[in-house]
Amino acid sequence: MIADVIADPSRPTDAELAALAAAVVEACGARGLTVATAESCTGGLVGHLLTDVPGASACYLGGVVSYANAVKESLLGVDRRVLADDGAVSAAVAAAMAEGVRRMVGTDIAVAVTGIAGPDGGTATKPVGLTYIACTGAAGTIVHERRWAGDRRANKRASAAEALAMAFAAVDATGKRAAY
Amino acid sequence: MIADVIADPSRPTDAELAALAAAVVEACGARGLTVATAESCTGGLVGHLLTDVPGASACYLGGVVSYANAVKESLLGVDRRVLADDGAVSAAVAAAMAEGVRRMVGTDIAVAVTGIAGPDGGTATKPVGLTYIACTGAAGTIVHERRWAGDRRANKRASAAEALAMAFAAVDATGKRAAY
Repeated sequence: MIADVIADPSRPTDAELAALAAAVVEACGARGLTVATAESCTGGLVGHLLTDVPGASACYLGGVVSYANAVKESLLGVDRRVLADDGAVSAAVAAAMAEGVRRMVGTDIAVAVTGIAGPDGGTATKPVGLTYIACTGAAGTIVHERRWAGDRRANKRASAAEALAMAFAAVDATGKRAAY
Repeated sequence: MIADVIADPSRPTDAELAALAAAVVEACGARGLTVATAESCTGGLVGHLLTDVPGASACYLGGVVSYANAVKESLLGVDRRVLADDGAVSAAVAAAMAEGVRRMVGTDIAVAVTGIAGPDGGTATKPVGLTYIACTGAAGTIVHERRWAGDRRANKRASAAEALAMAFAAVDATGKRAAY
């Protein structure tokens, strides 16, 4: 579905991000579903985009910006051993963040983002741009791995777009999930 | 201090918001101080702006987007009676959000925003644009009341600028607080 909205998923425009957020709010509103967010590298951008949409309060209940690992543990209940074993930027932590915030806030679905936005923080095995985006709901949890090649701000925006697209797919009541 | 950075505090530009966020990160970094955010109507914008600054992870530990009242209670520990008596958009709740997130995340200072961004949600006594921005730290808690006259997005941006300016003032180790 993201391909229908965003010409280049690694470089979403302001209008494309706004359209994605509006689509999530509209789809949730039509189905009476609620959403939460857990954000590390995006720092609150996903919540900001959702709350730019008038009426977002009907579906977006809130979330956690878990920039520091201690916050991933204390506010999201991410297992310290998973953080130690897999690292904060990992599929396991992204999934645990999404599942944690869904449980803490009590929503139908939740999305989470953890990654290395740059310019610092990259390693040989976990380079700048590596990002895991998770979405969880009644049907289970999905994690996407992405390797963005932009600068810090571009990587945050690309990750936010992916999270919104995954949330939209999760609320798609048709049961059909378009490839994205 | 905000008057030194922002020509019209009710209409901050992208460059002005970025400059304010960078000033907070730089000031905190120079003093070894940490910051948390609790955001209602801004929905994550303050955290987003802080995390646009490279190196923000040295001082910004994270926070909570408490869009729904239940999240203000469960994740920030805001007293249900205060929410009922004063309403979610009040000086008391703004202060409790800031103090709650400072305690939960364990930072030196914390800022919080609660308001009615619009276009809906206003009443005769609490009109669209009414916003409370709180900042708390070792020296105590300050709350500013503002009545923004912009649209939803403009009101969010004005509130975020105010929160960042208050955070900057709180980390000002000189002890002098410029009027803003």
